[in-house]
Amino acid sequence: MSAASFHALHDRLRGQVPWGADDRRGALGHITPERLAAAAGEVRLGRSVTMAAALAGSAPDNPEPGTRHMKRLPGEPSDVPGLSFAADQLVMNVHGDVDSHIDALCHVSYDGTLYNGVRPDAVTSQGASELSIDDARNGIVGRGVLLDIPRLRSVAWVEPGDHVTAAELAAAEAAQQVHVGAGDLLFVRVGHRRRRAELGPWDVAKSRAGLHPDAMEYLAERQVAALGSDSNSDAAPSGVEGVAFPVHVLAIHAMGLHLLDYLQFDDLVPACEAAGRWSFLCVVAPLRLPGGTGSPVNPIAVL
Amino acid sequence: MSAASFHALHDRLRGQVPWGADDRRGALGHITPERLAAAAGEVRLGRSVTMAAALAGSAPDNPEPGTRHMKRLPGEPSDVPGLSFAADQLVMNVHGDVDSHIDALCHVSYDGTLYNGVRPDAVTSQGASELSIDDARNGIVGRGVLLDIPRLRSVAWVEPGDHVTAAELAAAEAAQQVHVGAGDLLFVRVGHRRRRAELGPWDVAKSRAGLHPDAMEYLAERQVAALGSDSNSDAAPSGVEGVAFPVHVLAIHAMGLHLLDYLQFDDLVPACEAAGRWSFLCVVAPLRLPGGTGSPVNPIAVL
Amino acid sequence: MSAASFHALHDRLRGQVPWGADDRRGALGHITPERLAAAAGEVRLGRSVTMAAALAGSAPDNPEPGTRHMKRLPGEPSDVPGLSFAADQLVMNVHGDVDSHIDALCHVSYDGTLYNGVRPDAVTSQGASELSIDDARNGIVGRGVLLDIPRLRSVAWVEPGDHVTAAELAAAEAAQQVHVGAGDLLFVRVGHRRRRAELGPWDVAKSRAGLHPDAMEYLAERQVAALGSDSNSDAAPSGVEGVAFPVHVLAIHAMGLHLLDYLQFDDLVPACEAAGRWSFLCVVAPLRLPGGTGSPVNPIAVL
Amino acid sequence: MSAASFHALHDRLRGQVPWGADDRRGALGHITPERLAAAAGEVRLGRSVTMAAALAGSAPDNPEPGTRHMKRLPGEPSDVPGLSFAADQLVMNVHGDVDSHIDALCHVSYDGTLYNGVRPDAVTSQGASELSIDDARNGIVGRGVLLDIPRLRSVAWVEPGDHVTAAELAAAEAAQQVHVGAGDLLFVRVGHRRRRAELGPWDVAKSRAGLHPDAMEYLAERQVAALGSDSNSDAAPSGVEGVAFPVHVLAIHAMGLHLLDYLQFDDLVPACEAAGRWSFLCVVAPLRLPGGTGSPVNPIAVL
Repeated sequence: MSAASFHALHDRLRGQVPWGADDRRGALGHITPERLAAAAGEVRLGRSVTMAAALAGSAPDNPEPGTRHMKRLPGEPSDVPGLSFAADQLVMNVHGDVDSHIDALCHVSYDGTLYNGVRPDAVTSQGASELSIDDARNGIVGRGVLLDIPRLRSVAWVEPGDHVTAAELAAAEAAQQVHVGAGDLLFVRVGHRRRRAELGPWDVAKSRAGLHPDAMEYLAERQVAALGSDSNSDAAPSGVEGVAFPVHVLAIHAMGLHLLDYLQFDDLVPACEAAGRWSFLCVVAPLRLPGGTGSPVNPIAVL
Repeated sequence: MSAASFHALHDRLRGQVPWGADDRRGALGHITPERLAAAAGEVRLGRSVTMAAALAGSAPDNPEPGTRHMKRLPGEPSDVPGLSFAADQLVMNVHGDVDSHIDALCHVSYDGTLYNGVRPDAVTSQGASELSIDDARNGIVGRGVLLDIPRLRSVAWVEPGDHVTAAELAAAEAAQQVHVGAGDLLFVRVGHRRRRAELGPWDVAKSRAGLHPDAMEYLAERQVAALGSDSNSDAAPSGVEGVAFPVHVLAIHAMGLHLLDYLQFDDLVPACEAAGRWSFLCVVAPLRLPGGTGSPVNPIAVL
Repeated sequence: MSAASFHALHDRLRGQVPWGADDRRGALGHITPERLAAAAGEVRLGRSVTMAAALAGSAPDNPEPGTRHMKRLPGEPSDVPGLSFAADQLVMNVHGDVDSHIDALCHVSYDGTLYNGVRPDAVTSQGASELSIDDARNGIVGRGVLLDIPRLRSVAWVEPGDHVTAAELAAAEAAQQVHVGAGDLLFVRVGHRRRRAELGPWDVAKSRAGLHPDAMEYLAERQVAALGSDSNSDAAPSGVEGVAFPVHVLAIHAMGLHLLDYLQFDDLVPACEAAGRWSFLCVVAPLRLPGGTGSPVNPIAVL
Repeated sequence: MSAASFHALHDRLRGQVPWGADDRRGALGHITPERLAAAAGEVRLGRSVTMAAALAGSAPDNPEPGTRHMKRLPGEPSDVPGLSFAADQLVMNVHGDVDSHIDALCHVSYDGTLYNGVRPDAVTSQGASELSIDDARNGIVGRGVLLDIPRLRSVAWVEPGDHVTAAELAAAEAAQQVHVGAGDLLFVRVGHRRRRAELGPWDVAKSRAGLHPDAMEYLAERQVAALGSDSNSDAAPSGVEGVAFPVHVLAIHAMGLHLLDYLQFDDLVPACEAAGRWSFLCVVAPLRLPGGTGSPVNPIAVL
């Protein structure tokens, strides 16, 4: 895609945002109370499934791994005879290329602004005074839909560097007999984690499967409320002249769409197969990190 | 309560656990698929509410505060002209006396064992090889019930040092016209956070409102699946001879009950009042921290 | 001191810096090879003494305490039978009001610049591209002189809020029979740590003993190479109209003087008494933290 | 070397330790006041040189890199108009295979004990109650000697897997016209960092140049006070049947010798060449980390 086409697409998507100049929640606005209440109707089997991967160790795609350190161990001498506690501390980057996380709307600065014209200096060393992840403190709760692209293509995974187009999303809908609608949380499986599990981790900064920028227009039309993937939704190389993360720019900056990166669907796919459908109630509960640029998350699908 | 009475209560509760010697999920077993599916019926208004407090700063009850550091700031020079990212890192203790978190079943060692007879050396400097929080990786999803003790007593909060008894829980049920049933996630509000907000933080290690140990028997009878509070459920002083955290010992060690500590109900109480009921769908999504002794959480109530 | 007097003093001190526009090491330039070699002659007893305090825990003056977490414990199961290691991780703020540390010349921004006119945006979220502590990577080695103001005043400590003037420094020199000369590392004891040990920690941001701004002119005349204190050299309240940290501004910004904050002299004072003199070889070895705004340090006095 | 020979060597070295059952400082006892005072005579040029490497980023030999995060940036809005500070936080593992550090005597547990028969449970999740790095709080100050093995062999570096024997240390002494004596801090250059700089980092856990175990007997005879290297002194594979880190075991556990790992001598070698000698005053200043298993350090050579 040429730089000019990308800019035109960016401006078009930006122009369609219906929320007004003061909006700070972006596409979450598509989740109306009616749609949220209806999403609860997706729960039939009474089964919940994680959509996150376990905290990862050092790897070529995880150069600064998060760690859990023990602060106290059970069985060690204690003030109270017979009673002791195990406790630990967590040190982790919120973003990165392995651990499942959500991007706040302050995450992307493009062309001199954040989402909705907010100035980049709203984010300082003290955190984000606007567009932080705490704007999603009440959770992102709605109907989730999983589109499984390797299933559509009958392959193990979408190869790194390859793009998932809007047309493919529509084809996956047809094949899976599910329709993505307004207020839905859309999850697109590209098979990134399966490839990682089978072939081992690689330098994903250089080579990664993701969505084609034209898929963002599809998401805008469908009024999707959030987008998640087992990749970070952006292919590498990007395929857009001069723009490294076109989906991040279009989703977060133009559309105000929260992105959920590096999820895992290995538990959800068989659950959907067993249920015979690809929609579910989905609850994303970011930690309450005021000023934060995102949060590690464990999105839960309930079928 | 005398040491002897406490030990008898502990053994009685431990003896009632129905799960068998290999169980590692404890009272979560009370959440059957039928109960989980029924809980979705609690969603009527289509409104979701946080039950967590924002990450706290240094205070007398928070001597080692968690922090969020910026790793990258938007607007700074970047490899890609026009595009930059904001990113941060999280450093936080999982437990403590302010930040909302869940305790894994490995958290308490008592009388030489963890829950269900697991040896304490299952937890080493490398984390817990059994009973870690990752045993709850699929989320804790069920019907939540909030019992509001200050409302029952017509006070602003339960005073530090005071205990909420089983009888009071029953009285609150009656007053609020709600019944705590099998598989429910029970939340008991003692007003800890309101007191903290109005009077400022204090040294809660010495003085804290909580549940009376006899309330644990009530929870066992009702087959509650998890227990949360805006305190840590344990009063200080404990009122039990020679045992500092009797509720932790009974809940986690004897009953296998996950505890949710230092939640906040300031958003949930008015939502329940507006809804005219005190039950809701509740989703707790611990981070995927294999080996972890717990997790920071943001439990979401959906009404 | 009025704002106008302070600005005049600042400009006067800044005007005296002899190093040229490209200088990034400031007053360290006063340590010539000859002076460094001569300083080795201070070693006679063959005794070395720490000038740092042990890593401190949470306290009113230490709201974000550093921590040391165990990563591995000896005696735990290991890949190699019979052999195991103990290892830990360090998390600590470089600055703060308790732990002994050195300030790099990038630490202070005043009137729109760092030391020697360097632009503040030389420091980004990625660290300092100029004036970082790595400019002192070869250590600060020279003759150290300790002036003990409580000894001069025959008091236990200088009271918080009180200032040590240039005249007092001169009086201490006379009383201790030592002369502060060119290239010396000057240490001024105000008794801060003794007060903290005896009365307990307090909120030092509001009330702290330190040097009077006029002492900076004295240091400039003497061509001192670095300044350390058991306080942070700045009194609180500052005594200067509209400037909170006048000594930091004058020392770091105007003079290019590295500051060593919150040292401890409880080991050094008796060592000096035993030696019958108040000068010694001093070695400050900042960690090699490229881009760093300072470093925790353990300055060593050798007598 | 057979397991039996190693055990015999270990017992022989352990039996020679002259310090008594209560000793906790090990070979540091060889640094007498006379020897320390004499070491100051090594200072002639008035030049100080770092022996540490800059904090390293992620690499195959650095899977959990330390980080420096900015806490505050200069030029950002501040309480005091015109004045602002730059501040950062340090998160780093004390040990590892790249960053320069010192091992405390509690670091190695072998055959059920730490150095001098101390029980391993002296180290808990709360740190080391004995043999911590704070036992070296007054610094390690003495005569340093650098033996340059690649120079002796006329090669760029000692190949990974190769060992430096006692005989080679003696040959290097002869070639460099320096004699390692009682109380000296011995530094052995194997060229590890030069190889890393020229060929890039590799997995040093599998392949690393180091000292032959027989070199430890040589060090014991010479009454060396501490041992440093640009490697970690231990070769990989170890060459000893069933023991992965024989030099660590012999040095720390049997002899009570502090090890300085992953130093860099690229600054020191040319300084020694310019000075025409290979001895110098050396100051190692561990941070004051009570309970710590070691410390990051920046050892300073003064010539």
